[in-house]
Amino acid sequence: MKNEIDQLMKENGIDVLLVVGPAQHNPAMFYLTGGGHITNADLIKKQGETPIIFHGSMEREEAANTGLRTCSYDKFPFSSYLKKSNNDHVEAQALRYHDLFLEAGVNQGKVALYGSTEIGGKFAILNKFQKMFPEYEITGLVPDTILLTAMMKKDPQEIARIKSMGEITTGVVANVFNFLSRQKSKGDVLVDDNENPITIGLIKAKINYWLAEAGAENPEQTIFAIGRDAGIPHSQGNDRDVIHLGKTIVFDIFPCENGGGYFYDFTRTWCVGYAPEETQKLYDQVKYVYDKVVSELEVDKPFKYYQRRTCELFEELGHPTIMSTPAALEGYVHSLGHGLGLHVHEMPFSGLTADENETLVKGSVFTIEPGLYYPENGMGVRLEDTYYVSESGTIEKVVDFPMDLVIPIKSKI
Amino acid sequence: MKNEIDQLMKENGIDVLLVVGPAQHNPAMFYLTGGGHITNADLIKKQGETPIIFHGSMEREEAANTGLRTCSYDKFPFSSYLKKSNNDHVEAQALRYHDLFLEAGVNQGKVALYGSTEIGGKFAILNKFQKMFPEYEITGLVPDTILLTAMMKKDPQEIARIKSMGEITTGVVANVFNFLSRQKSKGDVLVDDNENPITIGLIKAKINYWLAEAGAENPEQTIFAIGRDAGIPHSQGNDRDVIHLGKTIVFDIFPCENGGGYFYDFTRTWCVGYAPEETQKLYDQVKYVYDKVVSELEVDKPFKYYQRRTCELFEELGHPTIMSTPAALEGYVHSLGHGLGLHVHEMPFSGLTADENETLVKGSVFTIEPGLYYPENGMGVRLEDTYYVSESGTIEKVVDFPMDLVIPIKSKI
Repeated sequence: MKNEIDQLMKENGIDVLLVVGPAQHNPAMFYLTGGGHITNADLIKKQGETPIIFHGSMEREEAANTGLRTCSYDKFPFSSYLKKSNNDHVEAQALRYHDLFLEAGVNQGKVALYGSTEIGGKFAILNKFQKMFPEYEITGLVPDTILLTAMMKKDPQEIARIKSMGEITTGVVANVFNFLSRQKSKGDVLVDDNENPITIGLIKAKINYWLAEAGAENPEQTIFAIGRDAGIPHSQGNDRDVIHLGKTIVFDIFPCENGGGYFYDFTRTWCVGYAPEETQKLYDQVKYVYDKVVSELEVDKPFKYYQRRTCELFEELGHPTIMSTPAALEGYVHSLGHGLGLHVHEMPFSGLTADENETLVKGSVFTIEPGLYYPENGMGVRLEDTYYVSESGTIEKVVDFPMDLVIPIKSKI
Repeated sequence: MKNEIDQLMKENGIDVLLVVGPAQHNPAMFYLTGGGHITNADLIKKQGETPIIFHGSMEREEAANTGLRTCSYDKFPFSSYLKKSNNDHVEAQALRYHDLFLEAGVNQGKVALYGSTEIGGKFAILNKFQKMFPEYEITGLVPDTILLTAMMKKDPQEIARIKSMGEITTGVVANVFNFLSRQKSKGDVLVDDNENPITIGLIKAKINYWLAEAGAENPEQTIFAIGRDAGIPHSQGNDRDVIHLGKTIVFDIFPCENGGGYFYDFTRTWCVGYAPEETQKLYDQVKYVYDKVVSELEVDKPFKYYQRRTCELFEELGHPTIMSTPAALEGYVHSLGHGLGLHVHEMPFSGLTADENETLVKGSVFTIEPGLYYPENGMGVRLEDTYYVSESGTIEKVVDFPMDLVIPIKSKI
């Protein structure tokens, strides 16, 4: 939680945070500012102090809305630094960073760098700064033991925002389910009343406008993959594909609040019309492992324990997994889940190389998403819900939604 | 254009490009790959060679769709590097970068870094790499004399995509105009048939819905600012604000293709019902300067010349500008325009500190957006269209749209 940041800085020997980039679609900046239309900023936070945000003068009101200390870049006109540096842009920006640090009351110390933004220029500028002003040490934390660690524990307000995104997300999923079930079949293809095939492109367009209508954004778009594509976990699906009855569809949707805020993440696997026996069997196995793992989750345990457990369960059922076959492309080929918040993927991670400290603690929000993939058999199954650890230490699903495999359709042409 | 990249690398003494991050909402990666659902990748391009993209195995099909050479990270399992580095994540990733470079046939040289992604970890990892393997020199270019310079010249296909975004954008603006004109006034407030005030929040929700319906994204949201907020160029406007008749509204909209592709950028200033004399006068002056500057634009001239010219014209009319008063908050307080493409703001820039080489060349796409701001008088006016330099060397508006100041409404309650 945000109130842990100073303590985490202390534990990590970090005197200052430097957060760069816009306030939207930039988790570290969003976390400390609350977002808003700030296209470019530098935020400097000394241990134990309120951050100061440096901003363009045109964005002074948006900056003031953050509630932080603010300072306009106008106080440090870039042209004067260009003059001092003989028109060397890298040196000019390094000199300006020095003045920003001094303005923030930082004249030395260990600085942890944050922000999602264009990396090339900043790399050159901050290395130049480092050389010119060796009393500062700029570093980045891998794994991130300050902000991502603080973000691991959500406060009730953050969980409420994620829940609200969950309601929007499952509402849109219900719309898609109902839309598909209202169509007809012609041969083994799903068609509308005019006998035009329903394409994946059409469904994705509908998803985007239902999300927009509900006040959400979809910056990474949607996975809606059928048949062989469903067998490849991150294949987005092909817009021109039509929907064949009985083929597995993996529908994975991960929208966020408008302006780049909190995400939700959710997956269902569907077959329109009917499910072939082989698909039903695969589905039942994924559902069995999903239920089993969820029933075994315990607060304060490392998330990766359950990745190992998931691999064991799938291997008992005779499937290859990345535990025994790290480069497996068939069977269970990814990790069990991930934390969720201002990033669609954040700590705690569940991969076998994740840290033991990435535990399911009070305030954790995380996905559970086992799956089985057999692209050469034209199928894949994944089931995903988002869970959280409540104030009272219980593990709760954020939003419930039915787990039907088959979307029944009513009529044939 | 893309075919200039090798020559630009040569001129800049750069042997290799390293582009990091996702393929969506990451201009450098999008430019070289065409986008797609690749959540994390490293792209290495040697001078004169086709790039190679390193990707997660789950994203192998999306990577294959780029048409580039591809290689799965599975070939370089992270766990083995963690072992080598005694569980030091930074060193493990530095070691892996070395193997990625070798796989790409790069065993030394000057590397320019690109990508819009989380900066902290990469800063630490690439500095570690640099120390461990001093035969490589990693740098970032400020200003960017390779990719952003190549992007300055769009090919006809890129211009067609921007034009298509322009049609979507102005279509949505027309929807907003028509929606507002269908409402009624009650006193000096705009209300719907049930006498509920029309709020800015409602209008912004409709904008997002209409954009999504048309296949576009709105990652930085919309500026729809009224009264005093209109007087602050980047104030987004307040969702709870109602629309008072006769107040100036600055409506600046800058959506992009789904998946983080090409942008459009467009602004109109409106008054609902009527325009007060003072507003009409300000509007006429901005329109006069807009027309004058557009009429004077010449191909191959530095864009910043027209910023100076715009300042002169506004000063002749008695307004303060940032040319004479760099920290001005009233009058003309920003630059004339900017290049537009995979970034909403890219080269050529028109600011007074921009480079002389940022000229309006064949294939340039750029905005023209003069404005006047008097927040303490509760008003601001900005007019913006996007222009391009055609194959035959003429300067053309990308999409035309009326410049009415007043949105007439038909009825009162």
